[in-house]
Amino acid sequence: MKRPTETDAWRVLAEHHAVIATASLNQLFADDPQRFRRMSLSAGGLVLDYSKNRLDDRTLALLIGLAVEQGVVDARDAMFAGRAINDTEGRAVLHTALRKHAGSRLDVGGVDVMPEVLEVRERMLDFAEGVREGRWTGHAGDTITDIVNIGIGGSDLGPYMACEALAGQGRPRQRLHFVSNVDGAQLAGVLDRLDARRTLFVVASKTFTTVETMTNATSARAWLLANGACERDVAKHFVAVSTDAGRVRDFGIDVANMFGFWDWVGGRYSMWSAVGLPIALAIGAEGFRALLAGAECMDRHFVEAPLAANMPVILALIGLWYRDFFGAASLCVVPYAQALARLPAYLQQLEMESNGKSVMRDGRAVGVGTCPVIWGEPGTNAQHSFFQLLHQGPDLIPVDFIMPLEVAHELPGHQRLLLANCIAQSKALMVGKGEAEVRAELSAAGLAGEQLERLLPHKLFTGNRPSNTVVMPDLSPTSLGALIALYEHKVFVQGVLWGVNSFDQWGVELGKQLASRIAGELDRDSDGAHDASTLGLIELARQGLARSASRRKP
Amino acid sequence: MKRPTETDAWRVLAEHHAVIATASLNQLFADDPQRFRRMSLSAGGLVLDYSKNRLDDRTLALLIGLAVEQGVVDARDAMFAGRAINDTEGRAVLHTALRKHAGSRLDVGGVDVMPEVLEVRERMLDFAEGVREGRWTGHAGDTITDIVNIGIGGSDLGPYMACEALAGQGRPRQRLHFVSNVDGAQLAGVLDRLDARRTLFVVASKTFTTVETMTNATSARAWLLANGACERDVAKHFVAVSTDAGRVRDFGIDVANMFGFWDWVGGRYSMWSAVGLPIALAIGAEGFRALLAGAECMDRHFVEAPLAANMPVILALIGLWYRDFFGAASLCVVPYAQALARLPAYLQQLEMESNGKSVMRDGRAVGVGTCPVIWGEPGTNAQHSFFQLLHQGPDLIPVDFIMPLEVAHELPGHQRLLLANCIAQSKALMVGKGEAEVRAELSAAGLAGEQLERLLPHKLFTGNRPSNTVVMPDLSPTSLGALIALYEHKVFVQGVLWGVNSFDQWGVELGKQLASRIAGELDRDSDGAHDASTLGLIELARQGLARSASRRKP
Repeated sequence: MKRPTETDAWRVLAEHHAVIATASLNQLFADDPQRFRRMSLSAGGLVLDYSKNRLDDRTLALLIGLAVEQGVVDARDAMFAGRAINDTEGRAVLHTALRKHAGSRLDVGGVDVMPEVLEVRERMLDFAEGVREGRWTGHAGDTITDIVNIGIGGSDLGPYMACEALAGQGRPRQRLHFVSNVDGAQLAGVLDRLDARRTLFVVASKTFTTVETMTNATSARAWLLANGACERDVAKHFVAVSTDAGRVRDFGIDVANMFGFWDWVGGRYSMWSAVGLPIALAIGAEGFRALLAGAECMDRHFVEAPLAANMPVILALIGLWYRDFFGAASLCVVPYAQALARLPAYLQQLEMESNGKSVMRDGRAVGVGTCPVIWGEPGTNAQHSFFQLLHQGPDLIPVDFIMPLEVAHELPGHQRLLLANCIAQSKALMVGKGEAEVRAELSAAGLAGEQLERLLPHKLFTGNRPSNTVVMPDLSPTSLGALIALYEHKVFVQGVLWGVNSFDQWGVELGKQLASRIAGELDRDSDGAHDASTLGLIELARQGLARSASRRKP
Repeated sequence: MKRPTETDAWRVLAEHHAVIATASLNQLFADDPQRFRRMSLSAGGLVLDYSKNRLDDRTLALLIGLAVEQGVVDARDAMFAGRAINDTEGRAVLHTALRKHAGSRLDVGGVDVMPEVLEVRERMLDFAEGVREGRWTGHAGDTITDIVNIGIGGSDLGPYMACEALAGQGRPRQRLHFVSNVDGAQLAGVLDRLDARRTLFVVASKTFTTVETMTNATSARAWLLANGACERDVAKHFVAVSTDAGRVRDFGIDVANMFGFWDWVGGRYSMWSAVGLPIALAIGAEGFRALLAGAECMDRHFVEAPLAANMPVILALIGLWYRDFFGAASLCVVPYAQALARLPAYLQQLEMESNGKSVMRDGRAVGVGTCPVIWGEPGTNAQHSFFQLLHQGPDLIPVDFIMPLEVAHELPGHQRLLLANCIAQSKALMVGKGEAEVRAELSAAGLAGEQLERLLPHKLFTGNRPSNTVVMPDLSPTSLGALIALYEHKVFVQGVLWGVNSFDQWGVELGKQLASRIAGELDRDSDGAHDASTLGLIELARQGLARSASRRKP
């Protein structure tokens, strides 16, 4: 395998960059009335407008050349065929199988995995419908009013983001709560509002050993028992998304209510599996199937479309273009929909845990920037927060605008303003405002002389700041499924371009090891071998824990 | 005034950086057992551990020299004295006056501003207590159960962040909701759960013209009238945080329930003013006073402590050090407290809107990187999301860990794990894991030969990644006040170092102008003069709006 910089395409791209870096987007649009038509794409119901990017046809051709040279097509086909492309862990990567429709076939190692996938899917959806319809009851026969998902990382971000995003699809039958942090304040704050007889906990942990999740689940179980339930009632209030039947049973959960998945589903790609149970509880079986169908539709596009008209490929290449040639250290994602407030946090995990790496699959250094920092907040809020920096800061920060068009609510005027703002921001970033224009504006406002000259530089906008706009027809499960699959495949393509394994996460191990050791030391007075800072912080933490303990004992 | 690069200190810092850039934090700690003691500071109840940073005594001395050369002391004193340091807008900057205790004096232009500050403060706190105690009722005599704050930017992020942060201080008497986005889905989703007779709206907009806020307030007013109230009842369900009595009265609000502030309070520095009304409603007058007292305590430290022992100054200098000498494009803020989940979003506005600029106060280009991108999520969640990149990505990304020690909940074991994780992460980032250690670990796990060699590079951690840890004794109003004031002053100092005006925000104007124009065009069929991309997006938006409209008409 080749380092990105060892490809032929890279060298030519670097030369070409020197030319295009000085080009103005305003000029590129002026020169080519067809630019929007040629640089926008439809797939899976979405439209990607990538015309407001600092590139031309030659840039795109060269980038496609890079994708060809790095073997994106073969890599993609290997993933969909179930080959063990997660090579540091020796596993296939088949979240795409999770959204295949009934009747599909997918052989992995000679075995069709689809029957198992469909069995769990149907059992999980049946269960969700049972809870929604009130057939599932608590130990005292009460219908369930509140569902608490206990999970962290991939077992939290996907379901949480999707449940928020799809809340406009009609009120869920039950209230949904998400507890993820080992910080007990989160669980305590949720439990405080709940009726134990009417609460169902979903504990999501593949191994059923994730420290945060099991700490929260254990405390939730103790709360249930302290509120009128006995041991055998646990099975009426807890179900599991896990693969470890032994541990699940030991916890008191009926394994009939354990929903499994497979080692070829990574945590950050797992919302399509039983990890998506809270989504099914929120929007029902039909909605969940629509979510899968939307993703499957994007999968088909990714597999079938030529690279130059392939939405995830284009998005990936543009991302790399800014990251490695313009030196952009971050990508700002701004959904113009409050319901997508958690999308940036979801994409943070998806992108940064997948491609936040420095080493290629062959163990050599990548040698160029890999995943940028992914961050963002919904618009229009972000306009009143950090957009100042996007418009007038010194760095180039590319933006992905996400713009759902239709809404379910009936409040007049709001959506028109929301869409206008989204469109205006991408335009403002691009066109900027030059000296002549500002001067005219200030004169018209009655300023002159020194006063005008002093204010003028502060009101200039350099412009030429790039963005993508992803247009969604609405916030339906189908559209959301397509959107998330789009970013998944974008991440996949970038992983191939950089040569990293997007599906492991060795970088989280060291902190885990040290946390377990330091947690033990907080209980004792004997110190481990640490630097003075760590020892100092441990001492402060001990004092805080002691103060809390003494406050509790009256 | 001097560009940062025109100072004597800068040149020396650049030379010094070349030396220190190769130093290892592990070695710096090994060489100096007193490093933690010397490189940590207490102020306002907080402890800042800045010893895990890539700097030594000489670095700090040089950075302090830069602060002296750029006139940080004079600038600070000018701010506290109420001089018009917001020079592009000709205004003083006096959010610090908002937290001064009763009995203080502060002359601005010969007039003591404190009587006015205290009058509004007391009236606002009285009002809050009246609502909390049920003395304030809806138009039909019902006590208030739900309060909806309608505001955006500074009128949303501060109160929202603080109400979440302080939720553990005891349950608020009323439920609090925050509506900020012009996206109607947010308001509709909140209204859907409310009883009009028991709901109080707080409309926060200095000018009472902010498009988002007035759109939401108008829709909320229509909802009230559609749910059994008449025009004269509006005054029982709406109060205003504003200075425009005319517009407030026209809306139907009794100006006795209008709480004002002053042109020397910027939006992003306004949570200490009447904008903090939701905080007072949530935690009561006594709690709000404690919040102010915590901030005032940090103010005193900032004014009195020598630069080399001044917490905001140190934090500011370290931030500039990474931004401009190590090229760090972002700062990651990770609070180890779920209640501080919105702190990164709050700091995004505070820092990026204040210092996300390229032009100095004198109109010349700054010439170096100014405010980095501020981003983050709470730990431990973030460990299961983007920490992979922090540990193994190619870029240096400094981290601010925020660690509150004591908690109010009683769940056993959680807090110990939470603190252990926070401490472990800063250690892991710093110490890394070298080849010998990984090799030993893999051998112990039974790996050998090619299999071991293949996995080894993926399990290496380069380490030497810096962080600050800000230790808070708890999540009390006092501690939170001190924390927010700490970051405010950090931002102020950085603004002075870079020579920018931290208190204007001209960069938000262009988008606003264009949005208003495009909103008009979405109603009509005639197109404005736009680039093809903007025209294409406008056409898609029109189609979406038309589909929504036709769906509604049966």
